[in-house]
Amino acid sequence: MSTLAVAMCLPAIFDVTVGNPDWQVFALAAALTLFIGVMLVLMTRGDVRNISIRQAFVLTTVVWVVIPSFAALPLAFADLKLSYTDAFFEAMSGLTTTGSTVMLGLDFTPPGILLWRALLQWLGGIGIIAMAIAILPLLQVGGMQLFRMESSDTSDKVMPRTTQIVTYISVLYLALTGLCALLYWFGGMSGFDAITHAMTTIATGGFSNHDASIGFFKSPVIDATATVFMVIGGMPFVLYLQAIRGAPARLIRDSQVRWFLVIVFMSIIIMWFYRAGVVEDSALARLRSVAFNVVSVITGTGYATEDYSAWGPFAVSAMFFLMFVGGCAGSTTCGIKIFRFQVLYATAKNQMHRLLQPHGVFIPYYNHRPIPESVTESVMGFFFLYALAFAVIAMCLGLLGLDFLTAASGAATAISNVGPGLGPRIGPSGTFATLPDTAKWLLSFGMLLGRLELFTVLVLLVPSFWRK
Amino acid sequence: MSTLAVAMCLPAIFDVTVGNPDWQVFALAAALTLFIGVMLVLMTRGDVRNISIRQAFVLTTVVWVVIPSFAALPLAFADLKLSYTDAFFEAMSGLTTTGSTVMLGLDFTPPGILLWRALLQWLGGIGIIAMAIAILPLLQVGGMQLFRMESSDTSDKVMPRTTQIVTYISVLYLALTGLCALLYWFGGMSGFDAITHAMTTIATGGFSNHDASIGFFKSPVIDATATVFMVIGGMPFVLYLQAIRGAPARLIRDSQVRWFLVIVFMSIIIMWFYRAGVVEDSALARLRSVAFNVVSVITGTGYATEDYSAWGPFAVSAMFFLMFVGGCAGSTTCGIKIFRFQVLYATAKNQMHRLLQPHGVFIPYYNHRPIPESVTESVMGFFFLYALAFAVIAMCLGLLGLDFLTAASGAATAISNVGPGLGPRIGPSGTFATLPDTAKWLLSFGMLLGRLELFTVLVLLVPSFWRK
Repeated sequence: MSTLAVAMCLPAIFDVTVGNPDWQVFALAAALTLFIGVMLVLMTRGDVRNISIRQAFVLTTVVWVVIPSFAALPLAFADLKLSYTDAFFEAMSGLTTTGSTVMLGLDFTPPGILLWRALLQWLGGIGIIAMAIAILPLLQVGGMQLFRMESSDTSDKVMPRTTQIVTYISVLYLALTGLCALLYWFGGMSGFDAITHAMTTIATGGFSNHDASIGFFKSPVIDATATVFMVIGGMPFVLYLQAIRGAPARLIRDSQVRWFLVIVFMSIIIMWFYRAGVVEDSALARLRSVAFNVVSVITGTGYATEDYSAWGPFAVSAMFFLMFVGGCAGSTTCGIKIFRFQVLYATAKNQMHRLLQPHGVFIPYYNHRPIPESVTESVMGFFFLYALAFAVIAMCLGLLGLDFLTAASGAATAISNVGPGLGPRIGPSGTFATLPDTAKWLLSFGMLLGRLELFTVLVLLVPSFWRK
Repeated sequence: MSTLAVAMCLPAIFDVTVGNPDWQVFALAAALTLFIGVMLVLMTRGDVRNISIRQAFVLTTVVWVVIPSFAALPLAFADLKLSYTDAFFEAMSGLTTTGSTVMLGLDFTPPGILLWRALLQWLGGIGIIAMAIAILPLLQVGGMQLFRMESSDTSDKVMPRTTQIVTYISVLYLALTGLCALLYWFGGMSGFDAITHAMTTIATGGFSNHDASIGFFKSPVIDATATVFMVIGGMPFVLYLQAIRGAPARLIRDSQVRWFLVIVFMSIIIMWFYRAGVVEDSALARLRSVAFNVVSVITGTGYATEDYSAWGPFAVSAMFFLMFVGGCAGSTTCGIKIFRFQVLYATAKNQMHRLLQPHGVFIPYYNHRPIPESVTESVMGFFFLYALAFAVIAMCLGLLGLDFLTAASGAATAISNVGPGLGPRIGPSGTFATLPDTAKWLLSFGMLLGRLELFTVLVLLVPSFWRK
């Protein structure tokens, strides 16, 4: 909370320097947040030696509900005509790096607010990387224990402690943001746009300062930069660290990275051919547009250069399913994630072999190592719950009166933290503003569910969790 | 093939008695099919002692491709203006008890053809029950081995051999069809309509002799009869046999049956309340309509009394997801099936417990017995492949130019063997006739895939299957 309060001072300072009255809003929100934060610190002083697994689950979920509640304050207080529901939706969408927005007229929105939105995504991005390294593998949710082994294996050799890894990665995250901003600026963005968009690119968040998103700039350099940095944001940051520390081969040899790049590449190729039959433009212009928007959907960034939901029937179906893919574990992306597809594929292949030789012994492999039974089960349980959560949210959205495409893509975009949905209403050319309030709360819950890898939240709903 | 040829004689005889020239078509098709059938018998004479698992997989799939190819002949030869593609689609849709149709103007279609369509579904229905008892548990596809244990357990005590069980069940199937026909006739159907509709009801197939499906009759008795017999068709036939043989409690105590009835009941209640807010009619009339159409979708029958895809946004989303549910294993229904949801639910619950007590030992249960690890994996693999196959088919349909709702519901309805899709084109008030030929072949493949529980077909696509 105190960190959040400090973060709120940034837009406040910025607003003061450009002479925008919004600085008062941020100062007020910061004061309130800091007050509560400091009070909590004082109340809970004393050394915490051990927290139980139960407490860790509660703490993680509560933090991800409380922080957006306060992060929404500047948006609610400012003169944006946003209800608290809207503000909470926007803050949750920011911190979970989703990028769905209820704000229209971004081009005329005060810069402090725009900076705040970008900051939320940027903090959410590094927050989730830290969680994926430090917390999720310990909680063993959805097969993330696979990365406990790996990171503990390498950390023994390369780095002594998790906090140190997280610190190094934060520096790297900052450096990548700077590099991205520089390239954006070089591509023609203003300094402000370059910095804020770099923040939301590396976080695969997708908030933009313009209603037309990245399409506003109409610059090939900017499109290419965004495409590359979205892909960078979708890969495991730990491997970058290892690459810098002298093991660049690890990055290329990592099977998750390979699959990710192959899936991205194949999707672009297929969509490129499909578009060739629909529109008449140069092969390069088509590649630029297709690569950008496909990468944006797969990584769950949610930028757009055009309304791809108007690209024709195949594009709608394909983009819908691509929303679920996501990037690598340990990146800023959400979705089902590549390693889970690898585990599912390995298990399914294994079963085919077992069907043919019922008494044979077959072991599924991930990254050249056998997958422990517990990981297979976790991943499969995750996949089932993902499908179930998607279906339930989509049906509830239907109950609230949304048509099938809006309901289905809305549920998918929330749980996979993508950003825009499909269709005229919540697609890349629309916003979530017109949805009923209940739908906004439901989608916010979906974002939280997806961001915390389902189990972290769902385990709190099991009655036996609260017993004894 | 020879059985099929004999079956073709039935509509031929019927057409002769009513003086319809179509008898020649059936006689010709029967002669051709019988010729090939007898030739095959002669060619493969000699005693087959053992067939390997590989051969069993090939045989099962080949049979389910060859039979529809010949069953399509009468439809292609008759004066219906159907291409062979259309005829094959219709035959596959019949034999897999799907019930998607490409034929419009059913009310004016010669009775021999209508009888043939009903016969296909009826034979397909008993065929799949026999397969679920005799073949699938041995092939261990998608967790069906769960029912090998159970049936072998009971067969030791109650009945000596699988063939005997299948014979008894066939008699029961015939009796239930007769009873259903009687009630239909009592409800106001003509003798012909009563018999054919009884055949497609008990098979949860859904072909009707009228474009307006069961809605044509506008009879509460007929609607109620259909609703009850669709539910009967969705439960395990083995348990009926045990119920008759003095263990009626088994039927009620079976956890799959209980879950099935609860899901059906809950879905009806929810939809009933939803409809109450949308239309103004009596509670009973609404119950009649909702119960009928919800049961029709869950069991994958595919009858309709009205176009439920025009019931509003929630109905579309809900019906879409209900398509995947299906009935019990060992019934005539398709879809993911209740026992798989039970296994998935038990495993997910188990994992939640394991998250809280990482060193605890938790065992998922099905029907009061621990679920073997291999079954859990099979079921989860099945679920993943089901989702994957659905996504691939839906995307391919998008590529063929179908809009999102048509593509998604078309893929779902094919793989789950439901019948109609959603939306104006392939929904309950439309037909599949206007789809491109490629889409019809793709959907036929989807029906086959769903009917043979995915693995039986997919295993043939694994390269190592054909090695050595």
